[in-house]
Amino acid sequence: MGRKPTNLDLYKLAFSHTSAAKENSDGFKESNERLEYLGDAVLGMVIAEYLFKRFPYKDEGFLTEIRSRLVSRESLGQLARKIGLDKLVVYDTKRKTALSFKYLHGDTMEAFIGAIFLDKGIKFCSKFITRNMLNAHIDLKHIIDNDNNYKSKLIEWSQRQGKTVKFDMIDEKGNSHQKQFKIQVLVEEEIVSSGVGFSKKNAEQDAARRACEALNI
Amino acid sequence: MGRKPTNLDLYKLAFSHTSAAKENSDGFKESNERLEYLGDAVLGMVIAEYLFKRFPYKDEGFLTEIRSRLVSRESLGQLARKIGLDKLVVYDTKRKTALSFKYLHGDTMEAFIGAIFLDKGIKFCSKFITRNMLNAHIDLKHIIDNDNNYKSKLIEWSQRQGKTVKFDMIDEKGNSHQKQFKIQVLVEEEIVSSGVGFSKKNAEQDAARRACEALNI
Repeated sequence: MGRKPTNLDLYKLAFSHTSAAKENSDGFKESNERLEYLGDAVLGMVIAEYLFKRFPYKDEGFLTEIRSRLVSRESLGQLARKIGLDKLVVYDTKRKTALSFKYLHGDTMEAFIGAIFLDKGIKFCSKFITRNMLNAHIDLKHIIDNDNNYKSKLIEWSQRQGKTVKFDMIDEKGNSHQKQFKIQVLVEEEIVSSGVGFSKKNAEQDAARRACEALNI
Repeated sequence: MGRKPTNLDLYKLAFSHTSAAKENSDGFKESNERLEYLGDAVLGMVIAEYLFKRFPYKDEGFLTEIRSRLVSRESLGQLARKIGLDKLVVYDTKRKTALSFKYLHGDTMEAFIGAIFLDKGIKFCSKFITRNMLNAHIDLKHIIDNDNNYKSKLIEWSQRQGKTVKFDMIDEKGNSHQKQFKIQVLVEEEIVSSGVGFSKKNAEQDAARRACEALNI
């Protein structure tokens, strides 16, 4: 992270998955989940500010969409593995097949950010996110251009699997000036995910991205 | 806000609703929506930190739930009116019936926070949120205790209106150790909202709260 930790316990906690959590002296079971909650909020803010300043003439629909791609569990998980966090996290191997492990690395990334924030404060943490994550490992242009990826990814998967995929618009809010759409993804007539966006295309992408996450595609 | 603004233009922008937006010299239509996006993220982080520190032995499910109640558009709207922001926002009165006006005050509150953040930095903004919002105007105990409010509120409303309300569980993720539920609210067999939570009860509350917001109850 570029500097020595002050409070090492925070980082130990950040790498303690709930499956390996122990009770502390007050009888509270400590795992990295509270840090993950905090890190998620810190990351959300730092990336919001970063995109706000980097794209002064893009509207909030664009900023929201790019942010949600940057902080998706999939992309955080990749990042965690790139910087080697996957080797530090402690979990109960007997439970490794459980569903909550799907997000193990992404969640650890968030908890790590929560620990840095508490240990070093928002300024350092913000620099860490910008330098060590965004500038070092993220190809922003690629992320912006890969607008259509999730829908095609989902459709290709369904063709391989011989399953039906349907996109249903379930909600439309606002007037012509500012509309928001909500679209649901159904696989084999079962609801898998829903997504929102300021255009039908964006809502479809959002829903498709969530479907890919939910289905582990 | 407790201090003189440095960059007054930021605040003017924060109070410009999209219905009254004008193009700037670069041809970009400026309204408070970008500031609202930023303020939402800042508010989310500051409240996440506040609750994290105030409730050291509460799990992330509790923290997430209380935070979402604190930053709901309804509660932000109330707050905006309490501190008089509703008198400052500029909008096109001809369009006032439009749906996007439902959130006018809550959105302005977020944009105002975005402006303070850009003008004065995160430390001042964080103090503003803690002192002028949380400590001055929010009854946290009341918010925590009013767990059941939204479901009863929705059911009472439906009885007055003679409409059917149904809660359907549409998703269940995770293992017995850590489960997440997703519940949908249907009014007259039409989907109105969905909510998530670490227990069925919490998911129902979340869904009911969103339904109350969507239906203006």
